[in-house]
Amino acid sequence: MLHVSQRGAAMPLSPYRKLTPFADAAKQRGVHVHHLNIGQPDMETPPAMLAAVQQADLRVLEYSHAAGHASYRQKLARYYRQAGIGVEAEDILVTTGGSEAILFALLSCLNPGDELIVPEPFYGAYTAFAVAADVRIVPVTSTLEEGFALPPVAAFEQRITPRTRAILLCNPNNPTGHVYSRAELEQLLGLCQRHHLYLLSDEAYREFCYDGAYVSALHLPGAEEHVVILDTISKRYSACGARLGAFVTKNKAVLGAAFRFAQMRISPPGLAQLLGEAAADLPADYFQHTKAEYQARRDLLVNRLRELPGVRCPVPGGAFYVMAHLPIDDAERFAQWLLEDFEYQGQTVMVSPAAGFYATPGLGRQQVRLAYVINQHDLEQAINCLAAALHVYPGRKRPQMERILNG
Amino acid sequence: MLHVSQRGAAMPLSPYRKLTPFADAAKQRGVHVHHLNIGQPDMETPPAMLAAVQQADLRVLEYSHAAGHASYRQKLARYYRQAGIGVEAEDILVTTGGSEAILFALLSCLNPGDELIVPEPFYGAYTAFAVAADVRIVPVTSTLEEGFALPPVAAFEQRITPRTRAILLCNPNNPTGHVYSRAELEQLLGLCQRHHLYLLSDEAYREFCYDGAYVSALHLPGAEEHVVILDTISKRYSACGARLGAFVTKNKAVLGAAFRFAQMRISPPGLAQLLGEAAADLPADYFQHTKAEYQARRDLLVNRLRELPGVRCPVPGGAFYVMAHLPIDDAERFAQWLLEDFEYQGQTVMVSPAAGFYATPGLGRQQVRLAYVINQHDLEQAINCLAAALHVYPGRKRPQMERILNG
Repeated sequence: MLHVSQRGAAMPLSPYRKLTPFADAAKQRGVHVHHLNIGQPDMETPPAMLAAVQQADLRVLEYSHAAGHASYRQKLARYYRQAGIGVEAEDILVTTGGSEAILFALLSCLNPGDELIVPEPFYGAYTAFAVAADVRIVPVTSTLEEGFALPPVAAFEQRITPRTRAILLCNPNNPTGHVYSRAELEQLLGLCQRHHLYLLSDEAYREFCYDGAYVSALHLPGAEEHVVILDTISKRYSACGARLGAFVTKNKAVLGAAFRFAQMRISPPGLAQLLGEAAADLPADYFQHTKAEYQARRDLLVNRLRELPGVRCPVPGGAFYVMAHLPIDDAERFAQWLLEDFEYQGQTVMVSPAAGFYATPGLGRQQVRLAYVINQHDLEQAINCLAAALHVYPGRKRPQMERILNG
Repeated sequence: MLHVSQRGAAMPLSPYRKLTPFADAAKQRGVHVHHLNIGQPDMETPPAMLAAVQQADLRVLEYSHAAGHASYRQKLARYYRQAGIGVEAEDILVTTGGSEAILFALLSCLNPGDELIVPEPFYGAYTAFAVAADVRIVPVTSTLEEGFALPPVAAFEQRITPRTRAILLCNPNNPTGHVYSRAELEQLLGLCQRHHLYLLSDEAYREFCYDGAYVSALHLPGAEEHVVILDTISKRYSACGARLGAFVTKNKAVLGAAFRFAQMRISPPGLAQLLGEAAADLPADYFQHTKAEYQARRDLLVNRLRELPGVRCPVPGGAFYVMAHLPIDDAERFAQWLLEDFEYQGQTVMVSPAAGFYATPGLGRQQVRLAYVINQHDLEQAINCLAAALHVYPGRKRPQMERILNG
């Protein structure tokens, strides 16, 4: 009898995947499902990017350089410099999506059994990458009550052991939408400097900050040795399917290690790099429209949520997610019930139960992540569904009870 | 002071990479470099594949399903069935190149520290994947004298320990071009059955067999539980830069584990899947022309090589590589000398020193891998260079000496 590996068995099935059959069944019954559950933007990929592939003179789809085409790396460096991030082409390794950048960072900075501190809730796939790279995630909890701000640096310090090698931060944050301030980042970098840790900064949502300027980890003085930016074109240009990302660092030793891992897969996707070059050539005001649209959606979603009895949520400063506390017994049960047993005017809504974003068991049971990746009209409809659902859900909790339970 | 991980430090720089600066310098001097060193086909990617991307109605480049688009998986299953490999869409996980299929196989079938037996010489990147997955490659040596046939099964059996989990075979073989016979495969499968091992079968070059029918590991009765096919469209459709591969198995537990690893990167490249669908729709005779061209090149290369004093090579039955023994002191030195100190009629040739394909230290020092991925006219020129070079290379060995040295 053959067995799969222990790590293969330990690999979690994504919570999204568990709910998919119920969503499919609802659609089969003719119910329209509003997908607030995944970070798949509805925005059009910029036509200039698509044209760059569709009008290219292609004959042989060759491997590119393992670090990406020189022309793309140069253009990407220019994009970063325009964002105030002082890097050159040679500081950039082009990757297959942000995913590969995350994997290369774990493989290059940590050994098997080493520890990675991550503020929770965090992007669920980090757990999977940690299993693949055989490293241990040590969570530090941020709370909805504090707007998912960075936990006190002392909370990180308490978790540091001789096996700790890095802190991983998603900024703006998925799933919380929190944008870390310069002060928060400086505290973290200081900690990394004192304890000789890497600061892995997942900046996939950099361009979507609604209430102020964005601070990248590489904006900070003294960050050069410590910081690796993990990046992707997926969200900022609505090009998730392209699978094009970047591993960016001024630390030559880490870049060298990541490059050697990159050599094993010979090259990142070629057509995607054509998209990427065109993206870097987009006019500087490209993000204005997209950002304004997301901001309007955020305001709509947050304002409506806050009117619902027993619902609490901070105003997220960035990305396109809201984490909300709902007056329910269990978000996984609620999410399934929405798809299986509920409809409102022929519609329902699919949400992400938040437990999948926490490493600490039991946390997030009453929270859901909502992605505002559908247009405002549909978003209104989706919120109407959610409001109606909270009225009739059998596992609902009365706001008075809630107040007592939560002190 | 920060350190890169031990695995990052252990990751080898590809031998190709070491020679690249010398090739660049030769080109700077105006010398034409014939690239026989890499498996990058010169054949055109089928225009129907390119048209499928260039004429598609694209608006939003969305994530695909983690296992690939259902439509592509169905078409790919049809391709396999036409090749006599009885699989369905649900036996296929679409991957980012064959590379990702290799990585997922190691992660899903082996635990950290487990052992993987591989006949050497083998594709150099296997070493890198083994470092990334923290598994140990145990080589079993095949020899040029035996035409790189499968070593006796007893040689494999001797290397099996309690940590052995799988055998990895590349068929047709890179770098040797050897095509394993049904008898060879049956012996290996029998061994895997007796010792409860996986048989990981890298079949990237399936369509390029020149002297007889191809036998896939999944053609064998009783293979279902043991075999995982690692595949790619890179070579067969000259689409290396697309990064599209497949992980194919009838073993549901292994497929499930690989699928969970696949979820971490959400989806394989989207545009590449459009290429892949068009590839699966190509007429059945598509490979005839390509195969005939490669076969003509092989015959030209092998016949010319065998005329050169002191050069020995088997006739490889498949893929597009020849491994040749040269009358030289050291292939790495020779390869560098070709680029740095030699030219013939304004040209030179870049070869792959074979030591990088062996795990056993000291083996392959007098061997090079030559890829016949340039047209016949250029190939003639490249061989002329090689012949001239062997006359004047300072580290050449006289055939008489060779005979004495090799017994």
